[in-house]
Amino acid sequence: MVKQERAARTREVLVRAAAEVFVEEGFATASIGAISKRAGVSAGGLHFHFGSKTALAEAVVDRAAASVRVITVSRLAGGNALQVLVDSTHDLMALLAHDPVVSAGFGLCVATGTGDAEAVGPCGVRRQWQRWVEAMFRTAARNGELADGVSAQDAAAAVVAAIVGFEALGADEGAWLAEPSLARYWALMLPRIAADGSLGELRADGSDAMCVAGAARSGAPDQ
Amino acid sequence: MVKQERAARTREVLVRAAAEVFVEEGFATASIGAISKRAGVSAGGLHFHFGSKTALAEAVVDRAAASVRVITVSRLAGGNALQVLVDSTHDLMALLAHDPVVSAGFGLCVATGTGDAEAVGPCGVRRQWQRWVEAMFRTAARNGELADGVSAQDAAAAVVAAIVGFEALGADEGAWLAEPSLARYWALMLPRIAADGSLGELRADGSDAMCVAGAARSGAPDQ
Repeated sequence: MVKQERAARTREVLVRAAAEVFVEEGFATASIGAISKRAGVSAGGLHFHFGSKTALAEAVVDRAAASVRVITVSRLAGGNALQVLVDSTHDLMALLAHDPVVSAGFGLCVATGTGDAEAVGPCGVRRQWQRWVEAMFRTAARNGELADGVSAQDAAAAVVAAIVGFEALGADEGAWLAEPSLARYWALMLPRIAADGSLGELRADGSDAMCVAGAARSGAPDQ
Repeated sequence: MVKQERAARTREVLVRAAAEVFVEEGFATASIGAISKRAGVSAGGLHFHFGSKTALAEAVVDRAAASVRVITVSRLAGGNALQVLVDSTHDLMALLAHDPVVSAGFGLCVATGTGDAEAVGPCGVRRQWQRWVEAMFRTAARNGELADGVSAQDAAAAVVAAIVGFEALGADEGAWLAEPSLARYWALMLPRIAADGSLGELRADGSDAMCVAGAARSGAPDQ
């Protein structure tokens, strides 16, 4: 049992080291040697746990997908669908800024093999996120939360594009991932997409974003 | 003179081949061998014109920057700054969809050496684009084209993020770069950011976007 725990711990250390190296050097140029060195695990140890760099990428994508799932599931208890969406984007930005596994996994467009990540697929975390945003806008439309004449599909596309843009720009310039940038984005968007009746209740800076992002980072949903 | 023309032609063929290989395989994994084969130019010929893969990347970035400059300069003759901006985003999407040099160069974040690209820098074309969008929103604000309470800076950030997102998503799923996607984006955004007085005159699908994108692709500004 102690042996199993140690193995699980070594796998986590390797996945995190791989994520850090992917973020710094890119997946294509990241070497197994650099990951092994970063993790403080011998090359043999790395190969025992992960047969290839692609297997490590799959593990990174799986972990990132799980973290994004924690955000989205933990937010579903909230009331207004648009506020849930705003809050979850704040959570995502906090993860992208502070968790190298999410940062590496979110945009990783690698065709993976037979692991769990197969279900996620290339660019899988980004697509998972996209589907969630689309679903939340459909819910908002059903609940009458959208302004007259605003289509859920068009609003979802605009928000998905912007969030992917924040992520891409943030990789080069961290201020894009900071809370005020996203809060100003939502302060601009909400008056256009939210129904007049609900606009006053919506918080562009998130209802309690940082708190749940912390919970998401430690893997525990806040419900 | 004929010799100089032939050398210039070979350089263009190499830059285009490099851009195509960068788009397909990514800059990091692209090999000089694959570029040389794609161009139909011997390895020796390639090395005569470009000393390294980074030198090729600089040339791609320079050409992409020039194409983006053509879009922005050719659009400045237009009247309404917001319409100029809408039109130029349509031009950019057309270039991203059809011109591998712009597609490869736009997001290329490579630290380059001593070539012309030094002025452009890593992620240089994207930054050049960002500065242009910011400048156009400042002009729009000065001209009274923005809706009450909308800050030029926040509107620029939202549009820059979305356009970078369209580009990133479009690399994986071409529909994001197609004209209707961007037209729907602007149809959503313009009622929020444009002053009521000018909204009726603005065309979300661009005033004549495809025409100028064609001119930009062939390198000739339309003025």
